[in-house]
Amino acid sequence: MKRYLPLFASAAICAALPVSAQEAKTYPAPSEIVAAAKAEEWVAIAPSDLLVMELAPDSKGKPRRVIIQLIPAPFSQGWVGNIRKLAAAHWWDGTSINRVQDNYVVQWGDATEKKALPEGLAVVPESEYVAKLFKGLNLKNFLPRFLAAFPDFAKKFPEVAEKDPKEFEMALRKDLESHVDPYAKGNRNLGGWPVAGDYEVGTFWPTHCYAMVGVGRNLSPDTGTGAELYTVIGHAPRHLDRNIALVGRVIEGIEHMSSLPRGTGALGFYEKEEERVPILSVRLGNEAKDVPAFEYLSTDSDSFAAYADARANRRDAFFNVPAGGADICNIPVPIRRKAN
Amino acid sequence: MKRYLPLFASAAICAALPVSAQEAKTYPAPSEIVAAAKAEEWVAIAPSDLLVMELAPDSKGKPRRVIIQLIPAPFSQGWVGNIRKLAAAHWWDGTSINRVQDNYVVQWGDATEKKALPEGLAVVPESEYVAKLFKGLNLKNFLPRFLAAFPDFAKKFPEVAEKDPKEFEMALRKDLESHVDPYAKGNRNLGGWPVAGDYEVGTFWPTHCYAMVGVGRNLSPDTGTGAELYTVIGHAPRHLDRNIALVGRVIEGIEHMSSLPRGTGALGFYEKEEERVPILSVRLGNEAKDVPAFEYLSTDSDSFAAYADARANRRDAFFNVPAGGADICNIPVPIRRKAN
Repeated sequence: MKRYLPLFASAAICAALPVSAQEAKTYPAPSEIVAAAKAEEWVAIAPSDLLVMELAPDSKGKPRRVIIQLIPAPFSQGWVGNIRKLAAAHWWDGTSINRVQDNYVVQWGDATEKKALPEGLAVVPESEYVAKLFKGLNLKNFLPRFLAAFPDFAKKFPEVAEKDPKEFEMALRKDLESHVDPYAKGNRNLGGWPVAGDYEVGTFWPTHCYAMVGVGRNLSPDTGTGAELYTVIGHAPRHLDRNIALVGRVIEGIEHMSSLPRGTGALGFYEKEEERVPILSVRLGNEAKDVPAFEYLSTDSDSFAAYADARANRRDAFFNVPAGGADICNIPVPIRRKAN
Repeated sequence: MKRYLPLFASAAICAALPVSAQEAKTYPAPSEIVAAAKAEEWVAIAPSDLLVMELAPDSKGKPRRVIIQLIPAPFSQGWVGNIRKLAAAHWWDGTSINRVQDNYVVQWGDATEKKALPEGLAVVPESEYVAKLFKGLNLKNFLPRFLAAFPDFAKKFPEVAEKDPKEFEMALRKDLESHVDPYAKGNRNLGGWPVAGDYEVGTFWPTHCYAMVGVGRNLSPDTGTGAELYTVIGHAPRHLDRNIALVGRVIEGIEHMSSLPRGTGALGFYEKEEERVPILSVRLGNEAKDVPAFEYLSTDSDSFAAYADARANRRDAFFNVPAGGADICNIPVPIRRKAN
């Protein structure tokens, strides 16, 4: 049973260490912990889970490519399915970025709102804004669904979870609920993604952190198709959690969006057609050319636990006072191009 | 004694209201609450508390002006004093923006690091990263200092505070500590600024929210002079709280900084001299020409309390699920140009 304790307890243990000025200099920075992670702690991202968006070149003729990773099950798969269809139909080719609101979002899609959508897109119900993994404390129901939802996590503790699922579940719950913030009783990076959860009602949902990609929609009961997308370019607008579908995150090239001129219309919409940034093409990663391979640091690895602890308690040379905590959006999952 | 309870209790009361789809449509959005605030709930910002920075015009010849409000006592006044001297000496004229790191900061100052500083700048000790308002629960000591530090707050409850300072302090403490987040036991907008506090040790400090302006420094014990400044252009880097001096916030023109091309060097520094953005001048607001008057919504007003509650529990038409809370950086203090 002790096998999983180091993971759950690491933050608390490290936070209790006495920190003198000299000792502080020996603590690695979060980036150094990531750089030292073992090869087997990195998880490859399948090319078919990437969206490759080519914007028109910038004013100096430089290409602008934005790469998005689509979110895996158990989250938002109805919209993700639509997005795969839209990309396969080359639907976004010739559309544009139409809205850049400072400290909020960049939004793209069909500015005319008249372009016909491909057939067969799903109408996804609002209930899908969250993943319902269990009801009450029905462990028999919960554990298999949780481990199926977050297979990396399951890989790490198969015997533990099988031998004593109740204790495993309680430890997991305690861990999740120890990461409280104003938006959720529990927050944790799970399966490579920032996730909030409510154990009382058994729901989990991805969180609106910087660079996360969501689905624009009209007023309820509309949930959006996935044709109109946005990404976060400011402080995490967590009030959108559970109110809009999150379908992925920008993993490369966000600067091509975040540094665009802000729109001067209401909500940051561009007022003139010529301000819009043309989208040349959007392709799934397995259809696009020259797409590098990417990998993320497993959120269930020892190195990730050390990295998350270091983000919450900076003790590297620059820092005098470790914060004692960090919100989920201040512990971004490390993602990098895979070395050849 | 009841007079101040509505303020402290408003968030909890409203959060408990049943929200049906129909009722939701009758709730005003945060922006509507701000627009409806009474004239006397707005507080004028003195021109002498503004820094007016003129950047070189953009590629289309458009002027780029950034206006910063300096933070008032009890925070960071040693550095703020230095900044007033640097502005009076026109020290920043001819310097530049040298660093733009995505989802982090824009930084400006003397790229050559050789420009002589004006005489008489203070060397501010690290202890000034926080304001120490009281020790333990010494109310006699605390209350006058707290009310002196946050005069708007004091104005609202003078009789209450005088009649029963102990009950007033306990209510205040309870209120502050009800706004917990991973970075601080207590968070509250106070005196017009986002503030975190620790009642156990009696310290309060401003928080690293979007657009806040801080003082670049070298390794401890260096605390920076104020000549090298940065502003936050991404998710709140709250781990910097108590580790760097915060001296103000950008109140107009942040888009001229946040939309700059990202630097490609380490930490987002521009690698080539021609990438740097020239700073034509920086003046105090009372020395600069054509500076509009600004005002902020008193953080101790009824409208601010309603606004903060609405930010934490969105019930306007777009939203299905109120978050139930909001972190301090997701409740930005409303600031606007004063109508003539």
